[in-house]
Amino acid sequence: MPIQPDLTFRPATLDDLPFIVGLIHEDSVVDSGEDPDPLAPPYRDAFAAIDADPNQMLMIAEIAGTPVGTFQLTFTPGIARQGQWRCTIEAVHVAPGHRSKGIGAAMMDWAVETAKARGCGMAQLTSNKLRKDAHRFYNRIGFSQSHEGFKRYL
Amino acid sequence: MPIQPDLTFRPATLDDLPFIVGLIHEDSVVDSGEDPDPLAPPYRDAFAAIDADPNQMLMIAEIAGTPVGTFQLTFTPGIARQGQWRCTIEAVHVAPGHRSKGIGAAMMDWAVETAKARGCGMAQLTSNKLRKDAHRFYNRIGFSQSHEGFKRYL
Repeated sequence: MPIQPDLTFRPATLDDLPFIVGLIHEDSVVDSGEDPDPLAPPYRDAFAAIDADPNQMLMIAEIAGTPVGTFQLTFTPGIARQGQWRCTIEAVHVAPGHRSKGIGAAMMDWAVETAKARGCGMAQLTSNKLRKDAHRFYNRIGFSQSHEGFKRYL
Repeated sequence: MPIQPDLTFRPATLDDLPFIVGLIHEDSVVDSGEDPDPLAPPYRDAFAAIDADPNQMLMIAEIAGTPVGTFQLTFTPGIARQGQWRCTIEAVHVAPGHRSKGIGAAMMDWAVETAKARGCGMAQLTSNKLRKDAHRFYNRIGFSQSHEGFKRYL
């Protein structure tokens, strides 16, 4: 797997919404019903809510100023395991044309190191059962496939 | 399944930590390494962090003033699905002696209604693959077992 020495990470800005929404739409295994306008008010409102919450990080991975990936981290306090904080990783996507280059692994390394620095004792994520390649990937980088993931749309 | 007309819900207080920590310890399928002192500083710190965060709800279900169950809700903004908020349900436990009476279903009904009232478009949870009975329960009450759940301890 090629090394990505030029990969850098930064918080997303409003200007990244077209990249993020486009990538979510392109990379979904089910129809996520995105709006064709990535700067529509619901996206701006969600971005503002994420940006205002110190327990949220919406991140962009980029190479030489070009966004190539995105993910969101949520830090959550809990009682179990002696008051352990968790880091939930969501909305992990790498742009087409930049896959299979180690970018996903570098993104998850960054997520794990950031979670540790924030005092989290665990990182967690769910992945649609259709994404068999993603499951192999998460197992390979040290995640345990120990749980069933349940969703209910409201 | 008996009806539970007397079941009520309220936010947990510090005084509930012995009930919550004891139940987590008793009901874990893996050793969660709890401290024998449920009021030890790490638990108090975690409770304070939850209590201070408007996107967290640590709840107690009780019957006639006696706690019988607990769960935590986390409300998270996200970009996908037109800026959809999610409700993540964690640490769902019903006290021994009060199981198989519909309390878990009532707790999850309350969680779903609260998530809707908060504007969430989805509720999600993970359940250890060893908890086969829990999986049947979540499927029965309308959750789709669509995802694999990955955890990595840090």
